[in-house]
Amino acid sequence: METIKIDISKTASFIQEEAVENLKGEIFAAQQKLHAKNGTGNDFLGWMDLPSSITASELNKIKSVANKIRAKADFVVVVGIGGSYLGTRAVIDTVADSFDWLRTNRKNPVILYAGQNIGEDYTHELLDLLKDKSFAVLVVSKSGTTTEPAIAFRLLKKLLEKKYDAQDVKERIVAITDAAKGALHTLAMREDYETFVIPDNVGGRFSVLTPVGLLPIAIAGVDIDRLIEGSVAMEKQLMAKNYANNPAAVYAAVRNLLYRNGKKIEILVNYHPKLHFLAEWWKQLYGESEGKDKKGIFVAAVDFTTDLHSMGQWIQDGERSIFETVLSVEKPRYNVVIPKDNDNLDQLNYLAGKRVDEVNKMAELGTLIAHVDGNAPNIRISIPELNEYYIGQLIYFFEKACGISGYILDVNPFDQPGVEAYKRNMFALLGKPGFENETKAIRKRL
Amino acid sequence: METIKIDISKTASFIQEEAVENLKGEIFAAQQKLHAKNGTGNDFLGWMDLPSSITASELNKIKSVANKIRAKADFVVVVGIGGSYLGTRAVIDTVADSFDWLRTNRKNPVILYAGQNIGEDYTHELLDLLKDKSFAVLVVSKSGTTTEPAIAFRLLKKLLEKKYDAQDVKERIVAITDAAKGALHTLAMREDYETFVIPDNVGGRFSVLTPVGLLPIAIAGVDIDRLIEGSVAMEKQLMAKNYANNPAAVYAAVRNLLYRNGKKIEILVNYHPKLHFLAEWWKQLYGESEGKDKKGIFVAAVDFTTDLHSMGQWIQDGERSIFETVLSVEKPRYNVVIPKDNDNLDQLNYLAGKRVDEVNKMAELGTLIAHVDGNAPNIRISIPELNEYYIGQLIYFFEKACGISGYILDVNPFDQPGVEAYKRNMFALLGKPGFENETKAIRKRL
Repeated sequence: METIKIDISKTASFIQEEAVENLKGEIFAAQQKLHAKNGTGNDFLGWMDLPSSITASELNKIKSVANKIRAKADFVVVVGIGGSYLGTRAVIDTVADSFDWLRTNRKNPVILYAGQNIGEDYTHELLDLLKDKSFAVLVVSKSGTTTEPAIAFRLLKKLLEKKYDAQDVKERIVAITDAAKGALHTLAMREDYETFVIPDNVGGRFSVLTPVGLLPIAIAGVDIDRLIEGSVAMEKQLMAKNYANNPAAVYAAVRNLLYRNGKKIEILVNYHPKLHFLAEWWKQLYGESEGKDKKGIFVAAVDFTTDLHSMGQWIQDGERSIFETVLSVEKPRYNVVIPKDNDNLDQLNYLAGKRVDEVNKMAELGTLIAHVDGNAPNIRISIPELNEYYIGQLIYFFEKACGISGYILDVNPFDQPGVEAYKRNMFALLGKPGFENETKAIRKRL
Repeated sequence: METIKIDISKTASFIQEEAVENLKGEIFAAQQKLHAKNGTGNDFLGWMDLPSSITASELNKIKSVANKIRAKADFVVVVGIGGSYLGTRAVIDTVADSFDWLRTNRKNPVILYAGQNIGEDYTHELLDLLKDKSFAVLVVSKSGTTTEPAIAFRLLKKLLEKKYDAQDVKERIVAITDAAKGALHTLAMREDYETFVIPDNVGGRFSVLTPVGLLPIAIAGVDIDRLIEGSVAMEKQLMAKNYANNPAAVYAAVRNLLYRNGKKIEILVNYHPKLHFLAEWWKQLYGESEGKDKKGIFVAAVDFTTDLHSMGQWIQDGERSIFETVLSVEKPRYNVVIPKDNDNLDQLNYLAGKRVDEVNKMAELGTLIAHVDGNAPNIRISIPELNEYYIGQLIYFFEKACGISGYILDVNPFDQPGVEAYKRNMFALLGKPGFENETKAIRKRL
């Protein structure tokens, strides 16, 4: 099999010569801290051997439950937020047919999402839609008390109970939660739901290769065996202690060097609209891992060529504080040729007979040249094909690089203390039991 | 009627006292340049009186064609990129039911988009879907030769010709294009398509209130009369020459002051997932208008509370180079109450009887306090309800503020020279006739 590759040649004029080589010691020391599990946040390194440690029987259980749910429900609602949402959606959107939900004879259940926001209109419209549909619910929460998914699950469970008898309700709910404790675990035991475990040593944003991601991804009709195979291959490859065989080390090195040289914003670029949510997943991975202690690259994402017609102007000619990391898919799945037109009023006949992807690739190359000319450095990650195997590689690649990169930045890449601040205020404002002092304090401030 | 409002009190500790007041002269001089049409880019100020100048007969023609298309087609493909795509999608997504396309008896045609990318897989899947659907095509392009929409339209037109007879094809295509010249204009005249005009003095990112946006928006079942009414109200209000009555002047002033004080990134925040594409439209509006001459705020967008679980950590505690502009919708359309649960395992009973929106509002307030405490300034724009009228207000508000803001930044807010660079390279690489010298030059470089 091939592998994803990284090309940093278009960053050369923006970082000091030899800088990448000079950083080698730091980079592989950081990697060694991951391997030896003796760096900060080392109680959350379970993601490192997720690909190779999953057993055939675990995969079989996931596939078997997925098949039951697929047989039972036309609509499947995944209830989760952050890492319990983005990885799932990233993989499904990347591999699935863009319009499957509109096809008359669709092959897969429609996957919908809830508990990833607290929009009252969104919630109403979702519940209203599901009233007359056959649906099932996957609820993904370690504690079972995270506000957004807990509200959504309460409402969806009530709707299931209204539509189906007790046995049927039970068969339409799967809980992905803690192995031993927490509200959702307790409920699942009592109601005898099918359950899957979120490991203690895997943080939300690193959890896509646990049942958190694997179950809904399998339900959507995606081949999780191949996903795991790809990530196992990358796990092995990234044990390498040299740049030549370790693209994660190269990525971690170059993005930190660019950051040190004033490139404060990294834009993840795709030329393939299916990668949109992969970029959202990546934003959480890097933003939440590195955005702390008043430092960290600001991460943004664009879909090209779409956003060349919106953010393109800024990227070409705004403040020179950005660099781009491009996800380039070498081979599309399908084949669409631009037809000839005898009138040629649109002047496109010079493209007749070419594949659409050939134009896309020249747009990519033309943009690369234009942006580098405009002083935006460019890292290019090439993906042989957009299928489960290479997405598995890509996920593990980004995770490993994130761990190394966070250590180089000298932060704990595996915590997220800043996410608690708004929650504490929200609980205080809502008068949550146990927050009486905070409630008094915040009311005084208002 | 009410109006959208701006609250800048949570920027006070980040800009010098009196700074807003001191900028007043500059701000209203910039506004005066717009009114007198004597600033840079003044041949593209047609957007300024679009709301008030549209006639009932123009609106009636749009509605009448929209109704014909609605009656004829189950699927309507809007072919366009940049300003010919984002405004349309922003308004439709904001007002329409989030799941209408999944309902058994949906009220409106499904609106799909093409020509906003060059993805070969996307194109294949779209064409494959439409093979056995009744569909129509709106093609939006001033020239008719912009690469992305021209490719998509060629392919879609071929599919229409395969499915329908000549008369039927003609009735399933509407062209929105130049009044007098260009490839699409010529084709539309020859084939006798229904046509609408893109005015010469309105740039793409300011064109949503022309037929570019109004026709597809009407086809989607959105009330364009109310949209125009709201924007007319805002057009009138923003003639005011004082901060108290002119929120656009306030917004332009404060964001420039924050920028001058090192806040280089503006994040547009919503707490209502339907506003996602409104933010995409806004990113083009500000990114393309201001990102030039090596300056301009970098614009990004988040959907909260979703992205509090991804970008929240960075915003709370990363580099202190950001400010937030929050779109807050005061009143949701529907009413969903959190039910009581006797077991209360999820510990949510303290919320029982409250509306979902009440929790959302406390999340918003709690986040506001947390982020301001964390030194991220906050501008708040409140929108009474998410309906056509207030979206009309919001669109005009952002457009006018953008014109003022761009003049304060001392750029031409109405051009986009940087967008040409990648196109020239792409044409050279593809060997487009007329680019022979560029082709030679770029091949030499590779």
